[in-house]
Amino acid sequence: MSGGLDSYTAAAIAKSEGFELCALTIRYGQRHGREVESARAVARALGIPRHLELPIDLRGIGGSSLTSDLSVPRDRDLSATDIPTTYVPARNTIFLSLALGWAEVLEARDVVIGVNALDYSGYPDCRPEFIRAFESLATLATRAGVEGAAFRIHTPLISLTKAEIIRRGLALGLDYGLTHSCYDPAADGRPCGRCDSCALRARGFAEAGVADPLVLR
Amino acid sequence: MSGGLDSYTAAAIAKSEGFELCALTIRYGQRHGREVESARAVARALGIPRHLELPIDLRGIGGSSLTSDLSVPRDRDLSATDIPTTYVPARNTIFLSLALGWAEVLEARDVVIGVNALDYSGYPDCRPEFIRAFESLATLATRAGVEGAAFRIHTPLISLTKAEIIRRGLALGLDYGLTHSCYDPAADGRPCGRCDSCALRARGFAEAGVADPLVLR
Repeated sequence: MSGGLDSYTAAAIAKSEGFELCALTIRYGQRHGREVESARAVARALGIPRHLELPIDLRGIGGSSLTSDLSVPRDRDLSATDIPTTYVPARNTIFLSLALGWAEVLEARDVVIGVNALDYSGYPDCRPEFIRAFESLATLATRAGVEGAAFRIHTPLISLTKAEIIRRGLALGLDYGLTHSCYDPAADGRPCGRCDSCALRARGFAEAGVADPLVLR
Repeated sequence: MSGGLDSYTAAAIAKSEGFELCALTIRYGQRHGREVESARAVARALGIPRHLELPIDLRGIGGSSLTSDLSVPRDRDLSATDIPTTYVPARNTIFLSLALGWAEVLEARDVVIGVNALDYSGYPDCRPEFIRAFESLATLATRAGVEGAAFRIHTPLISLTKAEIIRRGLALGLDYGLTHSCYDPAADGRPCGRCDSCALRARGFAEAGVADPLVLR
């Protein structure tokens, strides 16, 4: 649960399908705390009773403009096929591992992640083949798996465009004004409008034909 | 690099094979800091220039007698086939994910882990099938993998008994007096002598026919 619109929508879809939700937010040393506040607001809005915030400082590992002093790229060509510097090495493997550990303790077998392989930044750990490989690993890695349980990694957004995600969320009554997407906001929390994450969000709302409530506020 | 004898020996074997080493120690909220001191001593003894200590508090996840208030089992039958409460949910998946992220930043392709599938406590994430699955995942999960690199997870101890590990380490000149194995030491750092980890260590030294230098001190 990052506080962005993808994890919010993915969680809402899982809730609409009847899952009872617990939310996990990783405070990983990203450049700002603004998205953690959004994660809390989103978890409250969805009525999620357990929200675990886990700190892990990935700045010790570095290698990304989100976890080091490298600057976040702005006005990047979104059709470029290279992996941008906002890629955090092994991030979704680390996040899913932590989610798997908690799921095992909760006796849950379903993990939901808001990855998206269409309107995204080309990160390798958002692809369906990565998710399937993690799902197989999860069963081998755990006591529950040894005892016969199969873990499922749900990716309700993986084949949707950003516009489709937004339409789906609005149909579920979500308030995207609670979310935060910018990689590198100003000191007062306002989005920069020029990083990949802002640009993908703006394009998504434009294609969906609706105004972004975050911009209106 | 846990500070125990397995990770020390695994690192020494990798060094003897010509690898340049970096060491990663995860401070994961285990019940004592004694093993972190041993990890530092071991890294120094091996002349490892970079030793990253990464804190991540797995007590938020819990589910193990190593990361919660459950008591560590003592005098357990080591031939029992159940998975004991010292199992930490998804621990090696979490640790290998963090190692993978750092390896990618370091442009390393080889990760060494001291897991052992013979004289061990029945943890699922110490088995060869888990390691092979993680290796496949690593290549799918990373930028380096997309660009054609293959990661290798080396497990030099996986098919050795504890006695064979100790003999191998002594042949490499290791000082096992630097290490620490006990899950639940006394306040002064002395091993309890009765947890699984103490029992496996004692049996290993006995079968190797040598005295444990930690006991002599």
